[in-house]
Amino acid sequence: MLNFDYSIGTKIFFGKDKIDVLANNIKKYGSKVLLVYGGGSIKKSGLYDKIVTIFNKNDIEFCELSGVEPNPRITSVRKGIELCRENKVDIILAVGGGSVIDCSKVIGAGYYYNGDAWDIVLNSRKITKVLPIATILTLAATGSEMDAGAVISNLDTNEKLPTFNPDMAPKFSILDPTNTFSVPKNQTAAGTADIMSHIFEVYFSNTNEAFMQNRMAEALLKTCIKYGEIAMSDPTNYEARSNLMWTSSLAINGLLSYGKETEWSVHAMEHELSAFYDITHGVGLAILTPHWMLYALNDNTLDKFVEYGVNVWGLNPDTDKYDIAHKSIEKTKEHFISLGIPSTLREIGIGEDKLEKMAKQATSHGKLGSFKPLAMQDVLNIYKASL
Amino acid sequence: MLNFDYSIGTKIFFGKDKIDVLANNIKKYGSKVLLVYGGGSIKKSGLYDKIVTIFNKNDIEFCELSGVEPNPRITSVRKGIELCRENKVDIILAVGGGSVIDCSKVIGAGYYYNGDAWDIVLNSRKITKVLPIATILTLAATGSEMDAGAVISNLDTNEKLPTFNPDMAPKFSILDPTNTFSVPKNQTAAGTADIMSHIFEVYFSNTNEAFMQNRMAEALLKTCIKYGEIAMSDPTNYEARSNLMWTSSLAINGLLSYGKETEWSVHAMEHELSAFYDITHGVGLAILTPHWMLYALNDNTLDKFVEYGVNVWGLNPDTDKYDIAHKSIEKTKEHFISLGIPSTLREIGIGEDKLEKMAKQATSHGKLGSFKPLAMQDVLNIYKASL
Repeated sequence: MLNFDYSIGTKIFFGKDKIDVLANNIKKYGSKVLLVYGGGSIKKSGLYDKIVTIFNKNDIEFCELSGVEPNPRITSVRKGIELCRENKVDIILAVGGGSVIDCSKVIGAGYYYNGDAWDIVLNSRKITKVLPIATILTLAATGSEMDAGAVISNLDTNEKLPTFNPDMAPKFSILDPTNTFSVPKNQTAAGTADIMSHIFEVYFSNTNEAFMQNRMAEALLKTCIKYGEIAMSDPTNYEARSNLMWTSSLAINGLLSYGKETEWSVHAMEHELSAFYDITHGVGLAILTPHWMLYALNDNTLDKFVEYGVNVWGLNPDTDKYDIAHKSIEKTKEHFISLGIPSTLREIGIGEDKLEKMAKQATSHGKLGSFKPLAMQDVLNIYKASL
Repeated sequence: MLNFDYSIGTKIFFGKDKIDVLANNIKKYGSKVLLVYGGGSIKKSGLYDKIVTIFNKNDIEFCELSGVEPNPRITSVRKGIELCRENKVDIILAVGGGSVIDCSKVIGAGYYYNGDAWDIVLNSRKITKVLPIATILTLAATGSEMDAGAVISNLDTNEKLPTFNPDMAPKFSILDPTNTFSVPKNQTAAGTADIMSHIFEVYFSNTNEAFMQNRMAEALLKTCIKYGEIAMSDPTNYEARSNLMWTSSLAINGLLSYGKETEWSVHAMEHELSAFYDITHGVGLAILTPHWMLYALNDNTLDKFVEYGVNVWGLNPDTDKYDIAHKSIEKTKEHFISLGIPSTLREIGIGEDKLEKMAKQATSHGKLGSFKPLAMQDVLNIYKASL
């Protein structure tokens, strides 16, 4: 097990009606809020009205940034920073999924940065201070509700890049699974694929001796496999929604990665797809993952795939190792298909023309990952296999 | 899944040579330390000298409380409080296992309490403020390094009672697995049994819908089963010691219990054994556990035992359910025996004479647990079966 420093500061209020804690917890940080949300689903669901009623009753002033995009753009971040400065905001409340939360985090960091916000995406070391962030989660997917990262897109430069600062971790997040009852099937599927990908990125690693973390990763994968389908066919199933929601947070808050080398190469490859084609992140991950697995499978990595096949998919450990490995990859692919997720890039409108450009950009800072390091040609091969 | 509030504030510095962060982290809280330790094994191992050197180099003043007992006594707590008051201590550094840490926590709470420290063990609501606590862990067992509880014994009254306050959670804990290399076999075994018992207490629960927590609990149980034996036969095996150490913290820091009803009846039964006979906590737990399991097994709880047998012990799910359940309990018992732990109360000097008194005291506040609620007669039956 590698050395690590563990510090997870975000408080979680989990369960039905947990919105009751909102006012008291906001007031620990001030009384002027920037309320950030996306396309307006929180208005349809009634969540927006609930929040406004709570704010009014508790003398909490607020201004709004709405319309944050599914791949949140630096233009929205800039708008948010202006709003915070104009209104002397004390705390940012993100109500939505990962996009809304990521956007809010970089608004919070940009508020204290004297320059254009894209600078702090390109170089997270320029982040010195962050406005407090709080969230009400409405989609189980990115885990942004409990981590310190954010991913922002720049359509001018076709870049989608992660940035990070410990102070960007939300001070508190309200996780009420009933707020995900209205998430449509395709987003439930893409969200579940996103959670699974976060787990894969830390599960497939050279640090074999992190036995406990590996078994925990399998526990979370089994949860996604069991409940992704149930949440789609029975959207108001509380058991399914609550398991997925809590899994989304634990998958990427550090718990599974502390003490391990981690991979993150599928995410890096997918970010290029989203940057160039503005596709749904979870869909891109689900398409690439089985092809990445097949590409990463070799004599060195074989045992890890056998572990995966036996422990996650219940395959017979007494059969041929490569057989188990191939079956586990096939099972992964079939699972994403069973969730109704496209399985080829062509299905989501991506052809051959920009693959090389994207592969170059994905590897512009060097090879991806360490489990199976990927150079530009490797990435291109995986993109081509995914067509 | 039940509603819950998650907040784990303890920072963990995990790995070889992590003692390097000690001075800087102490200084965040002040420069006067009460150093608390047990019977002196930290002097033999050289850890004591390392700490003193670091303190001297960094102008950190310290006073000492040594000789804290394996079941830490209220008399030691009182001594510690006096030392803190005389020396105007800023922070308490516990160097040891759960006993030393538990003792330090109640010293920290007692420092601010105007009255006898036993009051705040009897009634944790009397705790209003706590001196900052930090730990350097030398035994993987109680998880006290990352939780907010403490258990203190009073030999005058034959009581061993838990107390709790969020502020008793350590500010930081240094977990260097090499500090457990010198833990003798019997303590390694008892520590592992203690960790397993913490997991059992939250795993065997009526909250079946907490699927993810249940799978994580199994992940941690498998880790204990794999590495307990290795750590005994190969005490300097870093992989084993590191997996056990991190598992000890995660087993009881809330991660497995958030969202679930929990049991804690075996702990309550064991605390009476330790209170009356001053035995090793983990040994008492290991003796009682299989008998508690057998007693708790019935048509209502059967499925949980089947889950346990199949997922933890790899038993064949296609056989008779009661067969699986009985085998899983047998496997548990055999496992503890394989670790060299006594399997009967008589072996550790406990006869029939005080069983009734202990059973009464264990149930003095009502039935124990909810998975299989235990009245006084039930506890007595389990004690008798364990003779």
